[in-house]
Order: sequence, then C-alpha cells, then structure tokens
Amino acid sequence: MTVSAEVRDTVQRLRRTVADLHGELTRNGLVIWTAGNVSARVPDRDLMVIKPSGVSYDELTEHSMVVTDLHGELVEGELAPSSDTAAHAYVYRHMPEVGGVVHTHSTYATAWAARGEPIPCVLTMIADEFGGEIPVGPFALIGDDSIGKGIVDTLRASRSPAVLMRNHGPFTVGKDARAAVKAAVMVEDVARTVHIAHQLGQLPALRREDIDRLHDRYQNVYGQR
Amino acid sequence: MTVSAEVRDTVQRLRRTVADLHGELTRNGLVIWTAGNVSARVPDRDLMVIKPSGVSYDELTEHSMVVTDLHGELVEGELAPSSDTAAHAYVYRHMPEVGGVVHTHSTYATAWAARGEPIPCVLTMIADEFGGEIPVGPFALIGDDSIGKGIVDTLRASRSPAVLMRNHGPFTVGKDARAAVKAAVMVEDVARTVHIAHQLGQLPALRREDIDRLHDRYQNVYGQR
Amino acid sequence: MTVSAEVRDTVQRLRRTVADLHGELTRNGLVIWTAGNVSARVPDRDLMVIKPSGVSYDELTEHSMVVTDLHGELVEGELAPSSDTAAHAYVYRHMPEVGGVVHTHSTYATAWAARGEPIPCVLTMIADEFGGEIPVGPFALIGDDSIGKGIVDTLRASRSPAVLMRNHGPFTVGKDARAAVKAAVMVEDVARTVHIAHQLGQLPALRREDIDRLHDRYQNVYGQR
Amino acid sequence: MTVSAEVRDTVQRLRRTVADLHGELTRNGLVIWTAGNVSARVPDRDLMVIKPSGVSYDELTEHSMVVTDLHGELVEGELAPSSDTAAHAYVYRHMPEVGGVVHTHSTYATAWAARGEPIPCVLTMIADEFGGEIPVGPFALIGDDSIGKGIVDTLRASRSPAVLMRNHGPFTVGKDARAAVKAAVMVEDVARTVHIAHQLGQLPALRREDIDRLHDRYQNVYGQR
Repeated sequence: MTVSAEVRDTVQRLRRTVADLHGELTRNGLVIWTAGNVSARVPDRDLMVIKPSGVSYDELTEHSMVVTDLHGELVEGELAPSSDTAAHAYVYRHMPEVGGVVHTHSTYATAWAARGEPIPCVLTMIADEFGGEIPVGPFALIGDDSIGKGIVDTLRASRSPAVLMRNHGPFTVGKDARAAVKAAVMVEDVARTVHIAHQLGQLPALRREDIDRLHDRYQNVYGQR
Repeated sequence: MTVSAEVRDTVQRLRRTVADLHGELTRNGLVIWTAGNVSARVPDRDLMVIKPSGVSYDELTEHSMVVTDLHGELVEGELAPSSDTAAHAYVYRHMPEVGGVVHTHSTYATAWAARGEPIPCVLTMIADEFGGEIPVGPFALIGDDSIGKGIVDTLRASRSPAVLMRNHGPFTVGKDARAAVKAAVMVEDVARTVHIAHQLGQLPALRREDIDRLHDRYQNVYGQR
Repeated sequence: MTVSAEVRDTVQRLRRTVADLHGELTRNGLVIWTAGNVSARVPDRDLMVIKPSGVSYDELTEHSMVVTDLHGELVEGELAPSSDTAAHAYVYRHMPEVGGVVHTHSTYATAWAARGEPIPCVLTMIADEFGGEIPVGPFALIGDDSIGKGIVDTLRASRSPAVLMRNHGPFTVGKDARAAVKAAVMVEDVARTVHIAHQLGQLPALRREDIDRLHDRYQNVYGQR
Repeated sequence: MTVSAEVRDTVQRLRRTVADLHGELTRNGLVIWTAGNVSARVPDRDLMVIKPSGVSYDELTEHSMVVTDLHGELVEGELAPSSDTAAHAYVYRHMPEVGGVVHTHSTYATAWAARGEPIPCVLTMIADEFGGEIPVGPFALIGDDSIGKGIVDTLRASRSPAVLMRNHGPFTVGKDARAAVKAAVMVEDVARTVHIAHQLGQLPALRREDIDRLHDRYQNVYGQR
C-alpha cells in the first residue's frame, strides 16, 4: 500500500504540521529526550502521520515523519514508527471524531497518573477545557491493544479530551493534532496548579451547573469564529 | 464608532506596547497557550486596547490587537476581543486611576486562588509592591459584570494592585499596562516563594508599621525619578 | 569627586563585567523584573560599580552602570544607584577581602529566609562552597546601615559566602563580582535541593570532619591553577 | 605518553561529541555553573575524554576537552581535568562495557540521594530505562577511589544505568557518552515525577513481571534498528 497521488498534498501538509507541533511539546516542557509523540489522522483515509521511534526532537522534520495505516503498519517513510503507534491507531479506529492524538510523560499529569487519582475540577480553566474532572485510565502494558482500549473506554465515559493512564502518563485527543497538543499543554498546566494548591489544604469544588455553563461557553464562544 | 484621527498615534503606540507586553507574560512563564491577556486604557478616551481572543502569543502583533470601548464593544480591529474584555472594561469604568489591566492563570497565584487564601505579607518584597496581604476575590462566572465587580470591590478594600479571583486566577492593575504586567510578574513570584516557605513550617508575619514603611519607601523612592 | 584618569580603565572594565554578570542572574532564574543587583569594588579605591535602581535587565549596559563611593554617594553615572547600595557599601567598608556583592530574591533561598531557618549542610556541594550551614541574618529595614550590618555580622561568624536575610532574601559575597554571582547561583541551587529533600523525610547530616575536608579541597584544589 | 596518530581521529571526534553533550546537561537543567561533567572512553585504548575542571559550559569547546589515561593522568590538553576524573576512570577500568559516564547534581535526583532513598519503580518509564528501582550508593569522599568503587559496586547489583550517591548526586553510565547523558536526563525526570507523586499519597508499585516485560521490550525493540 502506498499513499495515492490525490492525498499526497494533504499528507505533505500534515507531515509538516505534526513535525512542528512536536516543537510545542518541548517548548512547553512536556517531554524530555524522545519520550512523547504527536499524530494526525489523514482525513477520509485510513492513514495517520506520526513521529518515528526514538528520534530526538531536534532532528524531527517533515521528512522524518512516517505514515502508517490505522493498524500501525508502515505505509510511507524510512524510519520505524513510534512505539506508541498501536495506541494512536486504536484511538483513530474507534473514535472517528478524533483527528489528532498526543502522548507525553509530562511531570505533574504523570504524577496524578502514578497515584491513580483523577484531577478534580476546581478551576474555571478545567471546566472550560475538560468539562469536569480529568479521568484516570487503567494500567496497561505496551505491545497489544490494551493501552488504546484503556484510552478509548475512559474518554467515552467523560467530556475530557485527556486521560491519565495509570503508572504511565497522559494521552490527549482533539479534532485535529493542534487541538490535541493544546489539551496536552493544558492538562499539564492544571495538573501542576491543582497539585500545588492541594499541598497546602483542601480545595472547594466547583458546582456541576457552573462547570456546565463554563464548558458550554468555552467550547462554543471562545476564540475566533 | 471609529477611532478619531487625533488619537490615532496614541492608539498605534498602545497597540505596540500591549503586543510587546504579552511577551513578558510568556517570558516570565505566566501563561500557556492563549490563556492570559493584557490591556491598556487609551488616555482621556473611553477606549482600551486588548488582546484578541484565542490567538497564540507568537502571532500577536500590533496589527492583531483590537480596540474596544469601555463596554467591550469592538471599535477597531478584525478579530474578536479577548473573552475577558468585559472584566477589563468594568475595571476601567470604575477605577479611573487604572491605565492597565492584566489577567493570567499563573501557577502559584492560581493555586492560592483555588484554596481561596490570601497571600500573607511575610516578605519585604510583598510589603514593597502590595502593601499588605494579597486579597482573594469572589468566585464569579464569565458572561456578565460579576468578574469585573469582584475585582473592583476587592481592590478597593486593599492597597494591593493584585487580586486572586477564587477558582480562577489573578488579575492585576497599574497606572499603565507595564505597571500591571509588573504586578502580574511579582504576584506569581511571591505566591511561589511564600507557598514554598509555607510547605516546611510557620512563617513569622511582618509588623504593620514595618509594612507601611517599606510600602511607602518603595512607592515613593525606588527607581529613577 | 570624580573618577581619576588612572582608574578609568579599571572602572570601564568593571562596568562591563558587572553589566554582563546581571545576565547570569536572569539566566539562572534568580531574579524577576528589576529585583536583584550585582556590584564590584574598584580595587584599591573607595569606589564601587553597581546597578542603577529600577532599570530592567534588558536595558543594562556598561553605560547605564553607576559608580559610587563606599558610602553610596554617586560619583559617576546618570542614573540613581540601586536602592540596596547602602548595604553593598557597608559590606565593602567592613570586609576588605570582599570584591563583589550580589543580592537577589531567588525563590528557594528566600523561602528559607522567610522561615528564618539556616540551610543545613547535607550535601557535598554545600560543604564545598559554603563550608557548613548557610546562616540566617536578622530582619532589617532598608534606609540605614541595618541591612549591611546584619550581613557583615552574620558572615563574620561563618565560612559561608552567603547569608539569608530574614523575610527578605540572600546576599552573597566573593573575592570578585563573579565569585559572588557564583555563590548566588549555588545558594539557590542548594536551597532548592535541600528543600525538596526535606519535603519527604529526614536528612542525615554530614560529619564536621568530612565537611572540613571537602571545603578545604574545593577551596584549594578545584578548578584551574 | 601522548595520543598515537592512529587514534587521533577518534579522539578528535570524541572531543566534539563530549563538548556538545555538555550542552544537553544545561539544556535539560541538570547543571548550574560548572557542577557536572561528561566523559567518553576512547574505544580499545586506555584513554578517556573528559571536561576540564571549573570551566563554564559556555566556554567548553572540543579544544578545551582533555584526554587522560584510565588512572586520571593527563595525556593531552592544556587544562586540569575535572575533579571527578578519578571516579570516571575507576568506572572505565572496572566496567568494560561502559563507554560513557555522566555526573550531575541535578535537583530531584540529588534530593533522593540526600535522603538516601532509592527511587521506586512506579512508572513504565522507570521500568523501561532502569529495569527496577534506581539504587543509592554509599557516602564517599572525593580524593581516592571511594566514589568510583561505590558507583561500580552499586551498579553491579542492579540493572539501572544510574546510581544516586548519598549526600552527593547521580552518576550514570551507558554504552557511549550519549547513552549516559540520556540516563542522566531520565533519572532527573523520573526523580521529579515520583517525588511529586509521593507528596500527595502512596504509590502502587509495578509488578516484577511487568517491569521485566517493559524493560526487555524497551532495551530490545524501542528506537531504530
């Protein structure tokens, strides 16, 4: 299987977008060394663009990105795909509304994941972006569909675009890769703020109806039309 | 309503100033993604210059800034104004001495806001800049004047140019936008230092008369005349 | 009083050195806005070169530095000297072996100062550079010789080049300005590490004889001859 | 003893590699001032390339690196070698599979070392890279083979490429200098994450068999073939 001529331009654009978005991971301090990855679905095709495995962020270019099908089989590119490809692929197969997936081991989100505790919705910013607490997914070993299934099952039961996989780290999704990166940046930010707030005392929760109003407004009014 | 020719130069200068000051927010680690904003009052006019909504800091230029009246209605610019425009506008309407307003979700200040605890005045730097403890404002939903009123009512009862809005984050004011940004940088710095000091034990408070002497000196002697 | 021709070259060199060393304060995250300063003694003259008051680090150049006598009176320069000039001057008058002084409000060192606790000598790096615990100086108001006297009295009773002034922040000294900046960088680094270690449990102390051996070796063998 | 003509090219290449890798220490926030060092074994020769003592990271170039034999005696270079040279040399003499050694005082790893507590294996990333808990080595004074022996004895009893030397800081090893730097980056990252997770509660441990499967996969499948 190869990429057909008609989607070549789209793939080319996504290769650049995905390569550039890895720069947001490093700029926001979400990753060290090679431990995080971004992917994007190729719209209307059973294909995704993802980071190659074990390549440092400095060396990532549109040319080093790889294209796989939605079972993680290499379709285009000279390098082996990310070792997390199976998890990304599972998400795309089971969540058709998702156009981008991000995985990091960002410090504070991973600390909540290590304790297996959801991040409570105690900030307007959490209500805005996550619509409630940020849920914890199961512990799952790499190597089969366990991680992907854990992500999808957890996200299906929540409004949150982020899930904290136990003893592992956060995965985020979005309508496109940029939205998934935004969620990755925000989950670390609120994980840090709520952790720090918790250190010195109890946190009053937001009311459900306030969370709903904030989430609705942010999802529908915020930003440029 | 459009900007009259006589204030065009002033508005042009403020557009650049406000765009540049957003760089201080990122440089000082006060904001992620698009979650913070700076505005400046146009002197002697019922106008303000403010960040557009949901635009990333890298893309902010003097041209992307928008001008609104002091009820948040767009006067000049092609983008929708910040979703916090109503709060900024309320402050300008009710605090004529204020020439700049800043809002962030900076980590440590927001953590104090999440607990609803004022930052105690235990450092000379807090006495200098804030003249006492840094107060907490009410929880308020976005969408009407609640946030603006909460800011103004709290600041009116204090010497502090910063208020920690509950479950939300800090707002700061100043005689101009640069002074408000300085207060935003300093509130995060002292929020962090006092948090860390508190983690390992009790903090002796400064005496009221020492706070007064420090505040008076800093406000009147520090810097260049 | 003006700078005599014979010391003009030395002063010129020190202006550049001191301006450049402020860059180390920002690079090492020790200061925000304008809240920290470096000075250097002019060797064999009752003069010092110091930062002007309230000027941002970006705007500091060798030309904006000011020269004062050792009572803080302006000798050369167009700007008012740092508001901490009296403390620097007191140190130079009373500690002839000191050629450089640095003051910051760096986060972790200031947190120890806010609690009024010395930093215990539990790391080889602390033994190396500070020769024992890092002491706390008295609370003192700005405006007379109280701060300077508190610094000198505390350092005289210690091998440490750093003192944590209560509710205020660290002052460091060195044989020249670069050595004082190094001590400022290291006091924040060890203040942070020991704070973090302390959060989760007790810390075994180093033995006095081990501290002495480490300190002696570091002061006499480390680095280039 | 001098470097023979036949290894000159190899040494030249390693000088550049080692100089560049020090940039990763600063970029990842593992070192301040001059307090950390990287070395590389010269393959098939009883030689190593290491940082000179007390030279700042900005001034490090391939030309300032020094070459010593595996007892730390200077073979090539104009500067005195790192004061930690004896420890690096001891590791190379006793661990023939090691091609690179790194020493830092990175904050969180050093905090675990100050408490003398191993970092528990509670994250998949720790299983991947370290194959179990990250062990603590003995307190040892600089000046003889005590530090080197403590490193080697501890690593021999573990799968971890990192050891936390008590009251001192981490040493890491790898098949080459880049692998040792990677371990230094990762030990600080997991030390930080696990510290933060620990602050708010208990951490469920990974099961031995899961650790073994993760470690085996990461060591043998991850990255490019």
